[in-house]
Amino acid sequence: MRRSTGSRWVAWVMVSAAAAVLCVVSLGGQSDEGRYDQVVASISKKGLRELGAYATLAKLLAEGPRLTGSPQADAAVAAMAVHMRALGFENVRLEPTTVGHWIRGEGEEGQIVSPLAGTIPVKVRAIGNSIATPSQGITAGVVEVRTFQELETLGDKARGRIVFFNGAMDPTLIDAFQAYGGAARQRSGGAVAAAKAGGVAAVVRSLTLGIDDDPHTGTMSYDEGTPKIPAVTISTAAAERLSEVLRRDPEAKFRFRTSSRTLAPVTSHNVMGEIRGVKKPEEVILLGGHIDSWDLSPGAHDDGAGCAQSIEALRLIKDLGLKPKRTIRAVLFMDEENGGSGGRD
Amino acid sequence: MRRSTGSRWVAWVMVSAAAAVLCVVSLGGQSDEGRYDQVVASISKKGLRELGAYATLAKLLAEGPRLTGSPQADAAVAAMAVHMRALGFENVRLEPTTVGHWIRGEGEEGQIVSPLAGTIPVKVRAIGNSIATPSQGITAGVVEVRTFQELETLGDKARGRIVFFNGAMDPTLIDAFQAYGGAARQRSGGAVAAAKAGGVAAVVRSLTLGIDDDPHTGTMSYDEGTPKIPAVTISTAAAERLSEVLRRDPEAKFRFRTSSRTLAPVTSHNVMGEIRGVKKPEEVILLGGHIDSWDLSPGAHDDGAGCAQSIEALRLIKDLGLKPKRTIRAVLFMDEENGGSGGRD
Repeated sequence: MRRSTGSRWVAWVMVSAAAAVLCVVSLGGQSDEGRYDQVVASISKKGLRELGAYATLAKLLAEGPRLTGSPQADAAVAAMAVHMRALGFENVRLEPTTVGHWIRGEGEEGQIVSPLAGTIPVKVRAIGNSIATPSQGITAGVVEVRTFQELETLGDKARGRIVFFNGAMDPTLIDAFQAYGGAARQRSGGAVAAAKAGGVAAVVRSLTLGIDDDPHTGTMSYDEGTPKIPAVTISTAAAERLSEVLRRDPEAKFRFRTSSRTLAPVTSHNVMGEIRGVKKPEEVILLGGHIDSWDLSPGAHDDGAGCAQSIEALRLIKDLGLKPKRTIRAVLFMDEENGGSGGRD
Repeated sequence: MRRSTGSRWVAWVMVSAAAAVLCVVSLGGQSDEGRYDQVVASISKKGLRELGAYATLAKLLAEGPRLTGSPQADAAVAAMAVHMRALGFENVRLEPTTVGHWIRGEGEEGQIVSPLAGTIPVKVRAIGNSIATPSQGITAGVVEVRTFQELETLGDKARGRIVFFNGAMDPTLIDAFQAYGGAARQRSGGAVAAAKAGGVAAVVRSLTLGIDDDPHTGTMSYDEGTPKIPAVTISTAAAERLSEVLRRDPEAKFRFRTSSRTLAPVTSHNVMGEIRGVKKPEEVILLGGHIDSWDLSPGAHDDGAGCAQSIEALRLIKDLGLKPKRTIRAVLFMDEENGGSGGRD
């Protein structure tokens, strides 16, 4: 997950490209400052007229969701290398990196089972890296908590039960990313905390301020020495529903089944291309985004936008015939979502 | 048309309400500054939790498009007065204002007629205040211009023809409202300029940066002493199409028919309600939006948003039990789109 919003899209490309050309070689007698103003204006006008980042984004999205280890991720890497070469970038190359390989598998299903409220189907989505349930699924009573502190005070009440993390994002934080960050631990660390309390599974409210029926995924991890239990998200609407059923029938059960698997790590790649600097080519100005996305979405915004912006900034500089002093490089990093390996290797 | 964007929506409500309470009566020994910080925070939190402006907006939109003189405009006025009373506002009242009454009528249609390119149907929308075509429509050759200057240099070439204003909004202006302003004269003044050049009608490219098939409307006016000719918009996609056909076949004709009519002015109303100030009730802080919208859209953004924001700011202040020193008034003005009478009368 990257912090960005649609309204900053075009502006970001302009700023990236403009910042990158602050190393353009002087070509005439004009003062640097005046010349840079012209360069920035020419980049801005060309970018706004051509909107080339959208064409790049469309090429990337055509490959579909791009989770690390998936054929779509490999195809996206190949397509973006072809694209950078077609745009005339120099030194277009792939940098190997070892990535985790988790797959969702087939057949995720869930339901609330309550003699009082009836049987209510609920969409579930395995959280990235979660183990699967047994093939027959898990059925158990539910204990609802809104915070980790609440879980810690439960004593034995979570034992043998599914721990339902129903902490909503805080709507009073104007910066919604702070609200996201405040609630994200339920997803990343809910399974470990639930297992420590004796729980048999974790069910987590999706991280969104909206009330809808679309369960989100994301990443999680297990601890050494803590039993691994399966973890899923449910939508915000389903979370409200489950909470209401539990108010009326504290003995209601939740049943769910998932089929995810963790396979052996595989080799994937960062993609990079550049415009070589004419004075100090060994000094590099780097623009980047991450090319991977979760398996449930083509990730136009997170982070197809960052990839397209990085490529577009170089395209504009190159097509305007600008000669940067330093090398300007675009890097599409593999694996931000599920481990960050591409940025570390 | 009001300048506002969705991303500023919530922030605008907060700022409006916060600015309005900078006249709250001091209740304790605390410094004004510290107390105002608390007041602003309480308004902000309540607003973000409750999002009441959306409920107000839904009530307004339920009445449909609200062009001056329409039954929907009257219904919206009545509904908003009821709503303000239900929210407990004081002095809820209607202020009469005389508004123009233009109706679109039934049966708008257009087509490009070219022996070379074939007959191509084109959606047309009468511009607000335009006269209608004769009942059989208008069929004539077309002269395309991108600027008023270009029209002035045509000499006799516009005589007996339809003048096609195809000036696109400038995509290089980051502030799209400047681009809108730069192209809007084609719509507001195109018919007069075309008539002065001897044209029989004006066809105007819609004011949007996007290429789509949705013709926009808006307002226009006639001059005393210049023949009144009918004016319509076509979509940006249709404008590109017509331009391309004219390149291949300069003798292509355009045919269109509209049925709009201007009826006698009628009485409509501004709607207002307030929270009376406890120290200086005769001094008024006014928040406002315009309640009318074009007949082709319920105007959620332009300017349902402004109306809902104004009401929400007062609702938050009132429901928090704040006692402003000065009177805070919300006014929903009738007729911004087609004449501005409500703000003048």
